Amino acid sequence: MPVVMASFRHHIFICTNRREPGHPRGCCGDGGEAVRARFKDEIARRGLARTVRANAAGCLDQCEHGPTVVVYPEATWYGRVRPEDVPEIVESHIAGGRPVERLVLPDACINEPCEHRRKKPAPPAKERT
Amino acid sequence: MPVVMASFRHHIFICTNRREPGHPRGCCGDGGEAVRARFKDEIARRGLARTVRANAAGCLDQCEHGPTVVVYPEATWYGRVRPEDVPEIVESHIAGGRPVERLVLPDACINEPCEHRRKKPAPPAKERT
Repeated sequence: MPVVMASFRHHIFICTNRREPGHPRGCCGDGGEAVRARFKDEIARRGLARTVRANAAGCLDQCEHGPTVVVYPEATWYGRVRPEDVPEIVESHIAGGRPVERLVLPDACINEPCEHRRKKPAPPAKERT
Repeated sequence: MPVVMASFRHHIFICTNRREPGHPRGCCGDGGEAVRARFKDEIARRGLARTVRANAAGCLDQCEHGPTVVVYPEATWYGRVRPEDVPEIVESHIAGGRPVERLVLPDACINEPCEHRRKKPAPPAKERT
């Protein structure tokens, strides 16, 4: 009998929210879709699909660091994830339990007015002096 | 100085995936959108929006029990959630730390071929005898 795994061992949420071009907070959409597709491929390739899910998510509200990914239940946040980063995340973190530190969003950037998160959009060029 | 809260104290994912009418696994879509709207209202009303997020999600793959909701990092799954259930979830679980047991999906229903999850769609009426 296989071991019964309720819930997911890792539930990976990838922001696939789309905003209009030029929005001051940016947009995870296009990059996020490609990142999610790569996660699904890597998870299937390793036979992890029963216990790990790569889930589309609406806006995760860390837009300035997008495409953003959060892995639960451990609540590890990744920022500026590219499709080519995904095999390393799956190998090191999902299969091996070691988050990929170079991509982890620091606490100071999560839900905080960090250097990347502008409070207000920059003024249009014609208003700059 | 306010206490700095990195990440979210509770990150609530609500399935808002849409399927065509009559799909054998069902569809969380319409109900899920209304549930999410109610979560957002209740969270804002209680001043919890800085530490709690009600997030849209794509298919959470527990469709037969939808609309489905999962709360992380505690990985509490709720099924058949109606908008009118949301104030109780926010009051008891999100604010009070006590999940609403009557709505919690049992482990035997999460990612398992339970009595609610049909392996194959029922045959169309004309094929029934």
